[in-house]
Amino acid sequence: MVDVQTNEIGKLAALVALTDETAALDIAPQLSEYEVVTGKVGSMELKKVIASVETAAKRGNLIDGETYRETHALYHAIIEAAEGVTRGKLSVGEIMRTVGLSFSVVRGRPYEDAREGEWLAVCFYGTIGAPIKGKEHETLGLGINHI
Amino acid sequence: MVDVQTNEIGKLAALVALTDETAALDIAPQLSEYEVVTGKVGSMELKKVIASVETAAKRGNLIDGETYRETHALYHAIIEAAEGVTRGKLSVGEIMRTVGLSFSVVRGRPYEDAREGEWLAVCFYGTIGAPIKGKEHETLGLGINHI
Amino acid sequence: MVDVQTNEIGKLAALVALTDETAALDIAPQLSEYEVVTGKVGSMELKKVIASVETAAKRGNLIDGETYRETHALYHAIIEAAEGVTRGKLSVGEIMRTVGLSFSVVRGRPYEDAREGEWLAVCFYGTIGAPIKGKEHETLGLGINHI
Amino acid sequence: MVDVQTNEIGKLAALVALTDETAALDIAPQLSEYEVVTGKVGSMELKKVIASVETAAKRGNLIDGETYRETHALYHAIIEAAEGVTRGKLSVGEIMRTVGLSFSVVRGRPYEDAREGEWLAVCFYGTIGAPIKGKEHETLGLGINHI
Amino acid sequence: MVDVQTNEIGKLAALVALTDETAALDIAPQLSEYEVVTGKVGSMELKKVIASVETAAKRGNLIDGETYRETHALYHAIIEAAEGVTRGKLSVGEIMRTVGLSFSVVRGRPYEDAREGEWLAVCFYGTIGAPIKGKEHETLGLGINHI
Amino acid sequence: MVDVQTNEIGKLAALVALTDETAALDIAPQLSEYEVVTGKVGSMELKKVIASVETAAKRGNLIDGETYRETHALYHAIIEAAEGVTRGKLSVGEIMRTVGLSFSVVRGRPYEDAREGEWLAVCFYGTIGAPIKGKEHETLGLGINHI
Repeated sequence: MVDVQTNEIGKLAALVALTDETAALDIAPQLSEYEVVTGKVGSMELKKVIASVETAAKRGNLIDGETYRETHALYHAIIEAAEGVTRGKLSVGEIMRTVGLSFSVVRGRPYEDAREGEWLAVCFYGTIGAPIKGKEHETLGLGINHI
Repeated sequence: MVDVQTNEIGKLAALVALTDETAALDIAPQLSEYEVVTGKVGSMELKKVIASVETAAKRGNLIDGETYRETHALYHAIIEAAEGVTRGKLSVGEIMRTVGLSFSVVRGRPYEDAREGEWLAVCFYGTIGAPIKGKEHETLGLGINHI
Repeated sequence: MVDVQTNEIGKLAALVALTDETAALDIAPQLSEYEVVTGKVGSMELKKVIASVETAAKRGNLIDGETYRETHALYHAIIEAAEGVTRGKLSVGEIMRTVGLSFSVVRGRPYEDAREGEWLAVCFYGTIGAPIKGKEHETLGLGINHI
Repeated sequence: MVDVQTNEIGKLAALVALTDETAALDIAPQLSEYEVVTGKVGSMELKKVIASVETAAKRGNLIDGETYRETHALYHAIIEAAEGVTRGKLSVGEIMRTVGLSFSVVRGRPYEDAREGEWLAVCFYGTIGAPIKGKEHETLGLGINHI
Repeated sequence: MVDVQTNEIGKLAALVALTDETAALDIAPQLSEYEVVTGKVGSMELKKVIASVETAAKRGNLIDGETYRETHALYHAIIEAAEGVTRGKLSVGEIMRTVGLSFSVVRGRPYEDAREGEWLAVCFYGTIGAPIKGKEHETLGLGINHI
Repeated sequence: MVDVQTNEIGKLAALVALTDETAALDIAPQLSEYEVVTGKVGSMELKKVIASVETAAKRGNLIDGETYRETHALYHAIIEAAEGVTRGKLSVGEIMRTVGLSFSVVRGRPYEDAREGEWLAVCFYGTIGAPIKGKEHETLGLGINHI
C-alpha cells in the first residue's frame, strides 16, 4: 500500500501518470477529492505535447479555457513538468529525440488553510530517446502551480 | 495494483522514492531483481544533495567507488534527476529556496537484450520552496544512465 | 507624455523602476489604481536580491506573507524578472559580477474581465558588471504572474 | 518628468520601446545625442524577431551591415534582450507561445571617458502568451553591448 | 611538437577536429591506439549535426548501432560537445545562426586501470554565425562519456 | 604539421591551451602576429577561474584594465569559453565538481578587412570532475569576441 497524504497533490498526479486513474484511486482513495484529467501524447515537437495537455484540460473542464488566468497557471505547470522530462534542455526534435508520454493533470485544494485555494499538478511519465523503437529510456516530470 | 513492467527501472525508482522500498516491493515484486539504495536529504546546497546520494550509493555498494566510470555514470544520473527537481535552474539556495528530498538509486538490467548491460535510475521526491516550513510544494526528478 | 493603458501593469512597473513612484504617477495617473511597493538592493548574491523584494512586498502589505499562495506567485515573478537582469545565466557573484538595482512590485487587476482577478508585476532596473565602480552597464527585467 | 542621465543608454532604449521615439524625446531630450531605430514584429519564430531587428538596424544605417564586427555586436545585444523577453528559455513557438513586440535600437557614447567608445542598447517591449488574442501578458527585455 | 599523453582522449579528439586524422597521427602517434571517425557537417538545424555524427560513428563501426547503450553514450557526448559549440543556448537556426563544422569521434581506453573500460570523445571545430559567408567566427566543443 | 590559417584566432588559442605558447608557435608560426597570455587555474569556484583570466590579461597588458569596454569584451569571451567547459550548467562547486585548467587569451586582427578591427579568443583546456584526484575527464571551451 502506498502512503499518500491527502494534500500530496504531486504524489497523486505522479501515481496517476505512472499507472492510470483507476489504479491510482485504488492505491490512494483521497484522489477522489480532486479533479483529474489524463491523456497520452507522442511527438518530436514539444509544442504538440503542451497543446495536448491544454486541450485535454479544457475538454475535461479541469480549467476554464475562457480565462487567461487559468491558462497561464496550467501553461507554467506544464513547462515545469517538461523541464523534468527534457532535463535541462527544453527541446525534443530540435536535438534529435522523441517522447512518448502519459500525462495527468490534477486540480484541487492540497493545503489545509482555506486561504491557499486551488492548485494544479501536471505529471508526465513515459519514454524519451532516439526516434527508433527501443532506443529510449524512461522519463518523468512534475510541475505544480497555484490557480 | 500498479502495473509495472520488469524493465521499467525508472518507474521502480519512482515508486521507491514516492513511498519506500518495502511498499514499493509490495506493489512491484520485480524490484527484487534490482539493487536499491534509499536515503533522505534536506539542504539549501545542491552539492550536499549530490554528495548525499553519492555517499549512500558507495556505502550501499551500489556503485564501485574505486572506479571513475561508475562515479561518472551516477553523477550524470543525479544531475538529470536534479534538473527535474529544480525545473530549469540548477540552483537551490542561490535563488533563495530549499529542498527536503527522499531519494532512490536503482541498478540493474532493464533491457531484455543482454548486450544492453547495466543501467542506473536515480529518483528524488520531496518538497521545494521558501526556507520557511509550509511555504513549499512537492517536486520530483528522475535521471537514467548506462553504467 | 507616455501613453500607458490602465491594463498595462508591466509598463507601469517598468516606469516605476526606471524612475520612481512619484514620477511614474505623474506620467501615468492610472498607476493609482494599483498597489505599489519599491526598493533598492545591491549585491553579489541573487538570494539577497530575491529576499529584498520579498521583504519589501510583505512589509508593504502588497502580499499576504501568511499564505504560501501569494509567496509562490511573487517568487516566480521575481525569478522571471531576474532572468532579464542576468540574461540567460541565473547567477551573479558565482560568475564574478555584481548588481545594483531599483525594483518595483505592482499588484492589481489589469484585465477588464473580472474573472481574471489579480496579477503581479515585478521590475528591476539598474546596473550589472564587474565588482568595480564604473565597470558595469544597465540591466532591466520584468516578471508577471497571476496571484 | 522622467529623470534620465545622458549616459543611461539602456533607460533611453527602454523609454523608446515602452512608448515611441517622439514621446521618448519629449521625456528625455538627451536621446537626440544618440542614433535610434525602432520597429515592430510579431511571430512564433525567434529567428524572425532577430532578423527584424537586424534588418531595421541595417536599413536605418544604425550599424554597418558590411562588417561582421557590427553585426556581431548587434546580434549579442539582441539575444540578451530576447533572454529577458523569454525569461530563461530562449524559445517561442517551440514551446507553444507567440510574441508581439515593439523594439528600439540605440547607438552612441554613454560613457564620459572617450576611450569607452560606442555602445548599443536593444530593448523589446510587448506581449507574450498563448497564440490566442488576449491570452497573453506583457514582456520586456534589454541587451547592451560595446560596438 | 605537441605533448600529448596517451590517455588524453579529449586532446586527441581536439587535434583531429582542429586538423585531420593524418596530421593528428603525425603530432600524436598514440592516436593509433584509438578508433577514430571524422566528418563534416554544415546546417542551421542541430538535429542534422547530431544525426551526421551518429551516422558517421555507426557507418565507421565506432559504435554498435544495434544497442541502445552505445547510442545513448554517443548521444550525450555529442550533446555536451554541442553545448560548447552553441555556448549556453542549445539552438542554431531557431536563433538565426548557422554552423559549419568538422568533427571527430574517438573511442578507446584512456585510463590505466582496466576497470575504467572504454570511453568516447566527440569534438567539433568550425564556424558559427549569421547565415552569410564571412559573418561568422570560430567555435569549438568537446564531449566525453563512458561507453 | 598542423594547417593553421593566420586568421584562425580560435584555432591558435586552442593550440596554445592544449600545449603551450612555445609548442604552439612551433606548429603555427603565425601566432607571432598576435598578443598571447597564458595561465593555469584550479578551483571549485567559477568566479576564481574568471578572475584568474582577467588578472592575467591585465597584468600581461593584453587588455587595458582602465576601460570597461575591454573588460566587457574579455568577460563575455571568458563566459562563452566557460560554457564549453561546464557544458550547459554554468556551475562548478555548486554541483559538486572541480576544474583544473590551462588557459590562453589571444588578441589580434583575424579578418583581412581592416574595418573588422581587433578580436579576442579565450580557450580553456584541462579536467573537470569529482573533487578526488583521477575521478575526472578532460574539458575544453572557446570564446570569441570583438574588442
